[in-house]
Amino acid sequence: MSQEQFQACIDECLACMKVCNHCYDACLKEGDSHHMADCIRLDRECADMCAFAAGAMSRNSQFAHQICQLCAEICEACGNECKKHDHAHCKECAEACFKCADVCRKMAS
Amino acid sequence: MSQEQFQACIDECLACMKVCNHCYDACLKEGDSHHMADCIRLDRECADMCAFAAGAMSRNSQFAHQICQLCAEICEACGNECKKHDHAHCKECAEACFKCADVCRKMAS
Amino acid sequence: MSQEQFQACIDECLACMKVCNHCYDACLKEGDSHHMADCIRLDRECADMCAFAAGAMSRNSQFAHQICQLCAEICEACGNECKKHDHAHCKECAEACFKCADVCRKMAS
Amino acid sequence: MSQEQFQACIDECLACMKVCNHCYDACLKEGDSHHMADCIRLDRECADMCAFAAGAMSRNSQFAHQICQLCAEICEACGNECKKHDHAHCKECAEACFKCADVCRKMAS
Repeated sequence: MSQEQFQACIDECLACMKVCNHCYDACLKEGDSHHMADCIRLDRECADMCAFAAGAMSRNSQFAHQICQLCAEICEACGNECKKHDHAHCKECAEACFKCADVCRKMAS
Repeated sequence: MSQEQFQACIDECLACMKVCNHCYDACLKEGDSHHMADCIRLDRECADMCAFAAGAMSRNSQFAHQICQLCAEICEACGNECKKHDHAHCKECAEACFKCADVCRKMAS
Repeated sequence: MSQEQFQACIDECLACMKVCNHCYDACLKEGDSHHMADCIRLDRECADMCAFAAGAMSRNSQFAHQICQLCAEICEACGNECKKHDHAHCKECAEACFKCADVCRKMAS
Repeated sequence: MSQEQFQACIDECLACMKVCNHCYDACLKEGDSHHMADCIRLDRECADMCAFAAGAMSRNSQFAHQICQLCAEICEACGNECKKHDHAHCKECAEACFKCADVCRKMAS
């Protein structure tokens, strides 16, 4: 993996972290937040994983590949939950999650 | 502050982190999770802050005092939210938060 | 503070996190890493604080202002350490730290 | 896995986090910190991974098993580095890492 691809993966994880945390905040404000419980939960899981992965890559961790493999899996799961919902923040989040999952999967391989 | 008090503050923060994350999980399972939105939110804030403070203290950060001051404030806010609710996990969480706020306040001073 | 300034502060913290973690990695590779011990230490403190602040802002934490105030202080301290050293990664890190400290200070006020 | 084993794994990860961060701090104070660069680096990786795993378990993350599998791997690597060194903090750290790796491996399986 080139230095450019490495930097791109860090930035994708940070972008996904921001969008997941925004979706978490927005879900907690929805009138149907009970219906959004799984989305709230996965948004946090995914935001925390993406932040952890970006941190590990930026400090050149020897475990970056395995961490990105796990990050891809969690992004995929969060995207699959978010895409079930019609809120704009959920649709936007699903898109960011799937994009990040792709980039992390390439990083891991 | 003695080494014993320092260790005690780390352990109080970690205990509070565990209880806040447990309360977060339990609130998301309640049928009235919309009513619990502020509690869910503060549980996460407090758990993350306590984990950050415990990490900083355990690596002997020169900023441990300021970090604990902020941690005390967030624990206090989380405790005040949790004590409004009748769920056993909220009562238990309020207690852990107020105890951690006290210990962090002493650490900070 | 406008939404644009808020987003700008998140991005400044994430940029500073990346540069601090890069400086940490580079310092550990220097032949004189003993001489770099304070820089390694502050790079980690600052990277972790910036990641914490960016996470808090992106989830719309009610404590964002106080967190950014602390972040500004830690960025300032890291910048002051880094600027003592002639390594290019330290100079770059000092610049990112001072810039982030400025933006966080405005966010906190 | 029983609730008791789950709690035990959280506590083992938090104990390992504390010991790794203490070893990191102590290594940075050693006169031969250049010689300790890999140990410093792995102490941070392991402390951060253990904190992440403990957080995930305490919030009942659906990814707890995969996270613990990765945590076991990083603990193992940190233990193998620490055991090369004669400092008491490294010996103590190696012991905590191998113990945590065992418990995480059981949790993951």
